[in-house]
Amino acid sequence: MSKKVTSRLEDFSKWYNDIILHADLAENSGVRGCMVIKPYGFAVWEEMKNILDKMFKETGHVNAYFPLFIPKSFFSKEASHVDGFAKECAVVTHYRLKNDNDGKIIVDSNAKLEEELIVRPTSETIIWDTYRKWIKSYRDLPLLINQWANVVRWEMRTRLFLRTSEFLWQEGHTAHENKQEAIEEAEKILGIYKKFIEENLAIPVLDGLKTNREKFAGAVETYCVEALMQDGKALQAGTSHFLGQNFAKAFDVKFANRNGQLDYVWASSWGVSTRLIGALVMTHSDDKGLVLPPKLAPYQVVLIPIYHNKDEYNNVIASLNKISQKLRALNIRVKEDFRDTHKPGWKFSEYEMKGVPLRIAMGPRDLANNTVELVRRDTLEKTEVSIDNLLGIIPDLLNSIQDTLFLKAKLFQEQNTFKVNDWDEFKDRIAGGGFVSAHWDGSSETEDEIKKLTKATIRCIPINSKKEPGTCILTSKPSCQRVIFAKSY
Amino acid sequence: MSKKVTSRLEDFSKWYNDIILHADLAENSGVRGCMVIKPYGFAVWEEMKNILDKMFKETGHVNAYFPLFIPKSFFSKEASHVDGFAKECAVVTHYRLKNDNDGKIIVDSNAKLEEELIVRPTSETIIWDTYRKWIKSYRDLPLLINQWANVVRWEMRTRLFLRTSEFLWQEGHTAHENKQEAIEEAEKILGIYKKFIEENLAIPVLDGLKTNREKFAGAVETYCVEALMQDGKALQAGTSHFLGQNFAKAFDVKFANRNGQLDYVWASSWGVSTRLIGALVMTHSDDKGLVLPPKLAPYQVVLIPIYHNKDEYNNVIASLNKISQKLRALNIRVKEDFRDTHKPGWKFSEYEMKGVPLRIAMGPRDLANNTVELVRRDTLEKTEVSIDNLLGIIPDLLNSIQDTLFLKAKLFQEQNTFKVNDWDEFKDRIAGGGFVSAHWDGSSETEDEIKKLTKATIRCIPINSKKEPGTCILTSKPSCQRVIFAKSY
Repeated sequence: MSKKVTSRLEDFSKWYNDIILHADLAENSGVRGCMVIKPYGFAVWEEMKNILDKMFKETGHVNAYFPLFIPKSFFSKEASHVDGFAKECAVVTHYRLKNDNDGKIIVDSNAKLEEELIVRPTSETIIWDTYRKWIKSYRDLPLLINQWANVVRWEMRTRLFLRTSEFLWQEGHTAHENKQEAIEEAEKILGIYKKFIEENLAIPVLDGLKTNREKFAGAVETYCVEALMQDGKALQAGTSHFLGQNFAKAFDVKFANRNGQLDYVWASSWGVSTRLIGALVMTHSDDKGLVLPPKLAPYQVVLIPIYHNKDEYNNVIASLNKISQKLRALNIRVKEDFRDTHKPGWKFSEYEMKGVPLRIAMGPRDLANNTVELVRRDTLEKTEVSIDNLLGIIPDLLNSIQDTLFLKAKLFQEQNTFKVNDWDEFKDRIAGGGFVSAHWDGSSETEDEIKKLTKATIRCIPINSKKEPGTCILTSKPSCQRVIFAKSY
Repeated sequence: MSKKVTSRLEDFSKWYNDIILHADLAENSGVRGCMVIKPYGFAVWEEMKNILDKMFKETGHVNAYFPLFIPKSFFSKEASHVDGFAKECAVVTHYRLKNDNDGKIIVDSNAKLEEELIVRPTSETIIWDTYRKWIKSYRDLPLLINQWANVVRWEMRTRLFLRTSEFLWQEGHTAHENKQEAIEEAEKILGIYKKFIEENLAIPVLDGLKTNREKFAGAVETYCVEALMQDGKALQAGTSHFLGQNFAKAFDVKFANRNGQLDYVWASSWGVSTRLIGALVMTHSDDKGLVLPPKLAPYQVVLIPIYHNKDEYNNVIASLNKISQKLRALNIRVKEDFRDTHKPGWKFSEYEMKGVPLRIAMGPRDLANNTVELVRRDTLEKTEVSIDNLLGIIPDLLNSIQDTLFLKAKLFQEQNTFKVNDWDEFKDRIAGGGFVSAHWDGSSETEDEIKKLTKATIRCIPINSKKEPGTCILTSKPSCQRVIFAKSY
């Protein structure tokens, strides 16, 4: 039993890595900076995808697929966009290998591309180059398109799920006939992200706007949802951008509006990624392993037999099989671990490590009593339940675990959000971790200076918070609203 | 109305391209050799994915995700594998762009990779490098993993869906403790492909083995399913490979077997791709546009109102909405085109072009008679149906269209499969198109010679056909079984 997890207090970052590895979510690959998403981790991503894809479709979006490669010239067309991504992109320069004189495989220098191709770090440029062909008139609008794809941003220091050179995500790219509609779309998607993350990942998020310094390269405004991890650091969980007419201008996408005049198209783009799995781990898990919210758990219930001989095994299995069938009929995802190559104790630890929300164990004594032992992963609370009551209890219990995880995280978030008006207290609070709500004078210089002094960035400017006059925490210049600071991933 | 389709007789290849473009399935992108899969085309792929993914999961397979990039050294480890793919791969050599002195964006020569990365043309190498870490004992086997991914094979001459530099596919990679199990897996998957394609795409396929010349680079045996297109050319629709211990040896993947001895792991791999959409088009479509089998049609029924004024519009719409609701309740995918910016005639052509299996039109006279006009896309047969009977008819009609498409294609396949014993007849038949069943002496030299003389390749060696003594069509040497020749895509 080598699966020992470092405790969170001892080393949060090592704890995180241990959970990812021991729960079989992912591992580093033989390719620098790229991860392998293992079947169990991928099953969590599939659950996320299914739910989010449905939410997109219910709001009128459709999926499509655009090329992996972006010609360098496309990439260069939107100035701030290329500035933002040029330093971290994989470049394809050749299209053939060959054998050298020693029989070694080398790049064929005769097969050099005339124009280098960038592996997409995000697809605004290739998509807006395409939209030029699709949009002629207001009748072609809105265009509400999403794609599920892999993207590459070259990273020097990587962490599984949080920062890898390749990751999986969805990216929405919409086109609209006026500014208002494009802003509404960006805000609608932010609402979908918040709802999706809170109701399924059970992670409470703050929603707001990024500052100019933090916004997406090429956006007019970036909306975001920000979550707070157990170590007090913030994690950006999703972003939605109002792009104005920036990409339409860069790619010359004009349309005949309702007045018959030619105008540039308005745009939004938005995305969430496999990074959400990192957020999931760092929000709910504990020193015994992963804790998964039932809505995303690949298995919601695991069934484990306890026995001393073949007869006992057969009898217990027969009863567990009946339970399993009935649970499946309720659309509950069940894992039966009936292997006789592993001891029950080993299985208990294994599924605790994997964060399965409910564990049902049954031995010969339980069978005689018509009961099972039921353990919930979040609290590790153990109860004896009559088999007759089991089916009635389990759906409620899964809902209750889902709710409890959210409430616990919400409480943590509230207990670690601090209103601060004094610079020394600000420094202390930031050092201690958490969201710090403070006044800021609105300038990028001040923002830079605060980051230099404390490592904190402005995570978001809350959208619906009330205006409140005050003075900047650093410069004492006037401010009309608090913003949220934190150290972040 | 510029959507004119070239007729099949006039120019089959142009017809194919017209259908793809006019039915909004896909188009060429600004990136050489890469296509944009448009929302309508992508929706067909999503239907395919959903069905096939379910079939894989029902047979014990799970999904995972492996890196896009493959280090050149991995790629080189299996000799015949690298020979097969080296000439057509995209190579990443740098990881950064920069501004030159004129402010132009160029590749940063200081950011050259120590080892070049290949964009995966297929993932055997990176996956078997990973399996080495996962497989220690027979208890870790079998490993039944699939991934849905994009892959890149550099192509000089591309055709939408059939041959593009980037395409989407699934690739299964399984690991087994003995030869027999790995062969059974490869054959099981071939069976799944055949069933999937025949029952959903309504395309009859021949199943068999590839010759040594045609098999996958790195395989011991390649199983395949082959379809016959309307122009008489064959199309390889899916392949499943028995890889022996080739990749286990190349990547040193050993396991402790049931006797406690170390042995190399046995493997299979298998895939189908977006190429299937090309097969779909070339099997069923006609000179009026796409024809889609109902099981894969993004919309199975389209509803179109006919009216001369606002009142008529409102009354017809009200009735169509009721029909739509009831169809949806039967899980039928419905498209309501109630736009008043387009005339009914335009809509009729549009949905014929898009291959929607059933069209329901309703005008004021229909409304008065409590009827609709129902047209099936495959036969263009028009009937007047009482609204009271409609819901009972439509599910049956969709099944019937599905069956008819398959039977029609099956008949075409049979009428265009020829048993030939004479070289002159062989040449004529190959020139005329179709599958030609003939004797072959089993040598690669003869195979090459036949290809040189007629452009025909051996599409497959049928698995279950009866042994029959004969003489090779070219060399007259003895042969024990007929094989299937054709010109192919």
